[in-house]
Amino acid sequence: MDFPFTRIKGGVGAPQRFLTSAVGCGIKNPAADRLDLALIYSEVPCSSAGTFTTNRVKAAPVRVTQANLRKGNLRAIIANSGNANACTGVQGIQDANAMCDAVAKPLGLKRSEVGVCSTGVIGLPMPMMRIEPKYDDLIDRLGPKNGGSVASAIITSDTHPKEIAISFDLGDHRVRLGGCVKGAGMISPSMATMLCFITTDAHFPTECLRKAVLECVEESFNRITIDGDMSTNDTVLVMANGASGMPPIRRNGKRCKQFRQALCWLMLELAKAVVRDGERVTKFVTVHVIGARTYLDAKKVAEAVCKSALVKSSWNGGDPNWGRIIHAVGYSRARIREELVDIHIGGKAACLGGLQAATPMDELRAVVAEPEFGIVINLNQGDADYTMYSSDLSPEYIDFNRSEYAYWKQARKDGLV
Amino acid sequence: MDFPFTRIKGGVGAPQRFLTSAVGCGIKNPAADRLDLALIYSEVPCSSAGTFTTNRVKAAPVRVTQANLRKGNLRAIIANSGNANACTGVQGIQDANAMCDAVAKPLGLKRSEVGVCSTGVIGLPMPMMRIEPKYDDLIDRLGPKNGGSVASAIITSDTHPKEIAISFDLGDHRVRLGGCVKGAGMISPSMATMLCFITTDAHFPTECLRKAVLECVEESFNRITIDGDMSTNDTVLVMANGASGMPPIRRNGKRCKQFRQALCWLMLELAKAVVRDGERVTKFVTVHVIGARTYLDAKKVAEAVCKSALVKSSWNGGDPNWGRIIHAVGYSRARIREELVDIHIGGKAACLGGLQAATPMDELRAVVAEPEFGIVINLNQGDADYTMYSSDLSPEYIDFNRSEYAYWKQARKDGLV
Repeated sequence: MDFPFTRIKGGVGAPQRFLTSAVGCGIKNPAADRLDLALIYSEVPCSSAGTFTTNRVKAAPVRVTQANLRKGNLRAIIANSGNANACTGVQGIQDANAMCDAVAKPLGLKRSEVGVCSTGVIGLPMPMMRIEPKYDDLIDRLGPKNGGSVASAIITSDTHPKEIAISFDLGDHRVRLGGCVKGAGMISPSMATMLCFITTDAHFPTECLRKAVLECVEESFNRITIDGDMSTNDTVLVMANGASGMPPIRRNGKRCKQFRQALCWLMLELAKAVVRDGERVTKFVTVHVIGARTYLDAKKVAEAVCKSALVKSSWNGGDPNWGRIIHAVGYSRARIREELVDIHIGGKAACLGGLQAATPMDELRAVVAEPEFGIVINLNQGDADYTMYSSDLSPEYIDFNRSEYAYWKQARKDGLV
Repeated sequence: MDFPFTRIKGGVGAPQRFLTSAVGCGIKNPAADRLDLALIYSEVPCSSAGTFTTNRVKAAPVRVTQANLRKGNLRAIIANSGNANACTGVQGIQDANAMCDAVAKPLGLKRSEVGVCSTGVIGLPMPMMRIEPKYDDLIDRLGPKNGGSVASAIITSDTHPKEIAISFDLGDHRVRLGGCVKGAGMISPSMATMLCFITTDAHFPTECLRKAVLECVEESFNRITIDGDMSTNDTVLVMANGASGMPPIRRNGKRCKQFRQALCWLMLELAKAVVRDGERVTKFVTVHVIGARTYLDAKKVAEAVCKSALVKSSWNGGDPNWGRIIHAVGYSRARIREELVDIHIGGKAACLGGLQAATPMDELRAVVAEPEFGIVINLNQGDADYTMYSSDLSPEYIDFNRSEYAYWKQARKDGLV
């Protein structure tokens, strides 16, 4: 960002008059005492906006939250991990609505002012008998500056909670912006497979907020991929409650641009954190395609490279294998000319004009041995560019994802299937 | 096939007046004595046809063979494994042409009557100094009924050579049809990543042969996927020399249909053999999408399911995870309605109307525990269907593909890079 800001504590609980809480219901694992149900609540009305999975198979909470957002603004979000409430039919919709009701009543909100999100295994009914006894506790624990518990409660196969909060000046007022994110598998562009909640006490009218959220998601979460699988539950929700006391941000004004910049920065940080914490990931790779004829060509090339199982395998092996990169460039369906393609790895030429460059292999191997590196693919055909953030694919990823039978066995024990 | 045929020995050497040979040059591994250079030659003129990778990065031998086929019919094919001669620029074209010349001269052919194919590592120059001393030997060894040596010489990471030959009656004449194939990684639709050579002593005019080859490839090699990566070298070449003595097959006649059926059957057998021998593959899965509104919708669904890393991981784990299957159906961009989707695994209902079916999980697990099983996805929206042949993705696949550094080290030792 090109203006000063300060990192602060508290995640989504950092902005003023946002309260949060989390409890453990045993949805993830009845035997373990892990947080898996979270609540975010604004004491004052909010502007709000969201983006959702483009998967045609949409989880019940996605459908419910989309419908609620169409009716107006949200003031609270309830979210659980351990069960995605996806492919659960009419019962799933009832369960998602029941979760909204459980929060709306004690907080004096309409059902449609509550967003609901779920993440976890697909196709098993929600274990509502574990969730229902915990609602009172969830409400009772609401408090400020404690976004960390929300970040912890929404993770599934993530190795750690992921949150950020910053404060900065918008005109004469200090505002706060906080966010948390989960997601480690089923991560692919067009809504990365994840949940992300962002709160701010800036005063941002709904219309402007929606536009900013769409733009920022396009530049952040839509540019990451871990395994190329797009989830049924992807959701980004943003609530702005204006509690900083500032006057409303005007569309296209200086403060609007500044806030948009901060929001995009925050989303990109969270998106990168998702890739870095991807399932059994060992490498964080930034792929920058330049010199494309069109934006779409650049995007196609970046996506093909970032999704190639062979390219990702070579990254896992620390192999600066430009041959596999250019082969993915070739099948991307972008208009490319092999003899014009340059590939730089960590700033060093690996391929020039479609041929092996003179850089000693050991220098390239030293770059790819690092946990983070960048690859620049220059198509030398125009001015368009696109950047993606990707990871390697490890034997451990496959091994980790071989079976979800344990979830089914638990659901069986619960009498749900 | 709905007409009688006999399996015979000899692979691509089985049809009359086709001679074959293979030698070991040390391209794959200078230290090991493995066959890696092969020749197929017809003593009489042929009709011929081919299909090639749609990757925009095309290996030199693909460009040379395409150009030669445009000039007329082939009578010989020279092929090597161990080096793909891809991303090798002008030198690569010269090397591919030199391989054609080396065969054309002693056999009294024009350069353009020789097809050339390479498969192996991308981006390293061809070790011509190893190949050149072996040309005489390659010509000297030419003999009948020995397609097996060609099948052995073209494999790379395949675990075994793959060939078939059959004979059947076409009208009053007995004809023979033989084929071999290689390919175990970089396997994806739109020309699976592989080399396939097919010979026949049927008399089939070039025009008809070209049409039949295109149709059969569409129904076989374009329907398999192992890792979703499309190669730079994919090539199918078919030569028909008429040596059975039969009169020419007429377009759209009964014999034309019959021969086309045999050709498609042979290609599908070879394509399936590629999937079964895929890199570190443990499962062969037939995915049949039915009830789609259009052929393209059915194809999109099949491709999304067969390429999903999460679906393939679950197959590897013997997990009948229909939730991951329907999630891939959802992001396939086909027009689907979640509440209409039925998924049967091994004939047993796993998902009906988008919801978990009543089949006991243990029955489904028993199906997926087998090395081969079928999945039927019914979209219940129309009459179009599409079938694909796929495999699991194993931790061992990733491990196997982590590094090609050894190839580079050898090329370095050879003074090629």
